[in-house]
Amino acid sequence: MKEIQHLMSYRESIKVVDATLRDGGLCNDFYFTDEFVKNLYKTNIESGVDYMELGYRASKKVFDESKFGKWKFCSDDHIREVIGDNSGTDLKLAIMADIGRHDKNDFDQKANSPVDLIRVAAYVHQMPEAIDMIEDAAKKGYETTCNIMAISNAQENDLKAAVEMVCQTPVDVIYIVDSFGSIYPEEMARVVHMYKEIADKYGKKLGIHAHNNQQLAFANTIEACGDGVDWLDGTYMGMGRGAGNCSMELLLGFLKNPKYNVYPAFKFLETDMVKLKESGVVWGYDIQYLITGLLNQHPRTAIQFTKDKRTDYAEYYKDMLF
Amino acid sequence: MKEIQHLMSYRESIKVVDATLRDGGLCNDFYFTDEFVKNLYKTNIESGVDYMELGYRASKKVFDESKFGKWKFCSDDHIREVIGDNSGTDLKLAIMADIGRHDKNDFDQKANSPVDLIRVAAYVHQMPEAIDMIEDAAKKGYETTCNIMAISNAQENDLKAAVEMVCQTPVDVIYIVDSFGSIYPEEMARVVHMYKEIADKYGKKLGIHAHNNQQLAFANTIEACGDGVDWLDGTYMGMGRGAGNCSMELLLGFLKNPKYNVYPAFKFLETDMVKLKESGVVWGYDIQYLITGLLNQHPRTAIQFTKDKRTDYAEYYKDMLF
Repeated sequence: MKEIQHLMSYRESIKVVDATLRDGGLCNDFYFTDEFVKNLYKTNIESGVDYMELGYRASKKVFDESKFGKWKFCSDDHIREVIGDNSGTDLKLAIMADIGRHDKNDFDQKANSPVDLIRVAAYVHQMPEAIDMIEDAAKKGYETTCNIMAISNAQENDLKAAVEMVCQTPVDVIYIVDSFGSIYPEEMARVVHMYKEIADKYGKKLGIHAHNNQQLAFANTIEACGDGVDWLDGTYMGMGRGAGNCSMELLLGFLKNPKYNVYPAFKFLETDMVKLKESGVVWGYDIQYLITGLLNQHPRTAIQFTKDKRTDYAEYYKDMLF
Repeated sequence: MKEIQHLMSYRESIKVVDATLRDGGLCNDFYFTDEFVKNLYKTNIESGVDYMELGYRASKKVFDESKFGKWKFCSDDHIREVIGDNSGTDLKLAIMADIGRHDKNDFDQKANSPVDLIRVAAYVHQMPEAIDMIEDAAKKGYETTCNIMAISNAQENDLKAAVEMVCQTPVDVIYIVDSFGSIYPEEMARVVHMYKEIADKYGKKLGIHAHNNQQLAFANTIEACGDGVDWLDGTYMGMGRGAGNCSMELLLGFLKNPKYNVYPAFKFLETDMVKLKESGVVWGYDIQYLITGLLNQHPRTAIQFTKDKRTDYAEYYKDMLF
C-alpha cells in the first residue's frame, strides 16, 4: 500500500501534458477550427497544464497535405498564426515526431521555433531511428521525450534493451505507452518498476500515456503516478484514437497541486468539446475497444467496426479470437 | 506489488454477482420486460455468473406498486412466473432488502422461495436494523450479505464499529460499497485492508460494489479483488444508477477461472442492452457524475442535471462546491 500522504499532498515534479490535438486529431483528421485551438490553449494556461501537444509534425513527403487539417503537420508558421509565439506563459508547447513518418529536416533550431518539446514516438524495433531523431532535436535545443509504443506487444527483454538504449541519449523523459489499452493497473505497477530501475540509473524522468479500452486509462495513469511516474498525459473528454485517453478533467480533479485548476476544464468541455461530439466526431470507450484491449490487439478493426455502426459484438469477438 | 501469478491464475473463492436488474432498475423504475429478464437469466447461466440479483424486495407500504415495474418488489410469485424455480442451475438468485424501505414479513421461509441470498443494504447508522434483518433472513434459511453504503461519507471509526457489529451476526459476506464513486484505487486498498482485518477474525467474506463516477468502477473492483475481496458485483454495460457500475463484460474478460465466459455477455449486450439504451434509458459515466464523485456527494443532483439535458458543467461544479 502506498503512503496516504501521497494522496493528500503532491509532488512538485509532476507535469501534466495535454494531448488533445495530437491523439484527438486521429479522430477527425486534425480538422480543428482555429477557434477550438485558441480556446484549448487558453484553457490549458488557466488550468495550469504544463505542456500542450499541438499535433504531429508529419512529413509532407509521406502524407498528402490536402487530406488533413494543419495540426497533422504543425509547422512553426501555423502555430504562430493561431496561438502566437507563446511568450509570457508557463505553458510549454510540444509536437510529436512519429518515427518513419517524420523528416528531421522539418525541425528548425529551437531558437527559431515556438515549440519547446519534441516527443518522439517509436515502436521498440525503431529505437535507432528514434535515437537519431532525439539526438538531432536535443542538439537543436529542444526538450525531448521518447514514447515507446505498443509495449504490451513487446518482449520484456527487448523493452528493457530499448529503455537502456534511449537512456543513453540526451532524452529528458521516457514514456510508457499502453497503445492497446490492454494493461491492468497491477501490470502497470510492474512495468513502471522495470522502467524506473533503468531510468533512475541515468537520471531520466518517466511519463505515462494510457488508452481507455478497458476503462483503465485514468486508473493506470494514477497508478503510474503513485509509482513515481511524473509526466502524465491527458486529453479533454478523453478525446483520442479509438477508446481515447485518460480524461484531463479526471486527472486535474485528482491532482492536488494548487497550480492545477479543473474549473476551466469544465468550461472548455461545455463550450467546445460537447460541440465537437455533437458534430459527429466519434471516440471513447465502447465494447469493440474493450475487445481489442482484452485481446491485446491494435484498435484498427474496432475503429472500422465503429465506422460501420456495427453492434454484433459477439461475432466480432469470435472473429478476433482466431 | 502483487504477485504476478494472481493475474495469471485464479481463486476458486471468487463469486461474480450480476446486479443489472437491481442497480439498473434505478434507471428505468424497474420496468424490464419479461423477455429481457429471461435473456439475462440465460446469459448469467451461460457466462458462469454465480449470483443474479433480481431487484429489491421493497415494501408496498413504502412504495406505490402501480408506479414501478415488478422487480422493485420481487415477490416469489413474480420470480417463479418469469424465470421458474431455478432448479438444476449453478446460478443462485438474490434480492435486496433496503433498510427502512423493506418489511421483513415480506420474506417467506427459504424453503418456500426460489431466492437463495438476501442482500441487506444499509447506511452505517442503520446497523441495528440491518442486523435485525440479517438475523431474521438467516434464521429463515437464506444466505445473507450486508452492503454498507456510502462509506466515503462515514467516519473510519464508525465504519470499523459497524463492520465489527455485523461480523457478529450470521452474515456471510460484508460488502464495501462506493456509492458515490469517489474512492481511488489506492484508497480502496486501504479500505479493503481495514475491512479484512476485522472480517478475517470472524471468518467472513468480503464483497465490492463500485460506481463509475470517475471511471474507476472496474479498476476499484479488480484492485479489491487483488487485495482479497471475493464477491465482485458487475452489471451488463455497467447499467446502474447515475454513472453506473463495474461492467460485467470487463469483469468476465478479466477473470481467469475457466468457468467464466465472456462470449454470452457480448451476445446479450448486442441483443438486449443496445436496445435498452436506444429506447432512451440513460446511465453511465458523464461529466456531472465525475463532479459528484470528485466532491464525494450523492449523485442525485447529477441525475437531475442529466434529466434536464444540461451541459453547463462549470456552473454546476461551482454550485456543488459551495
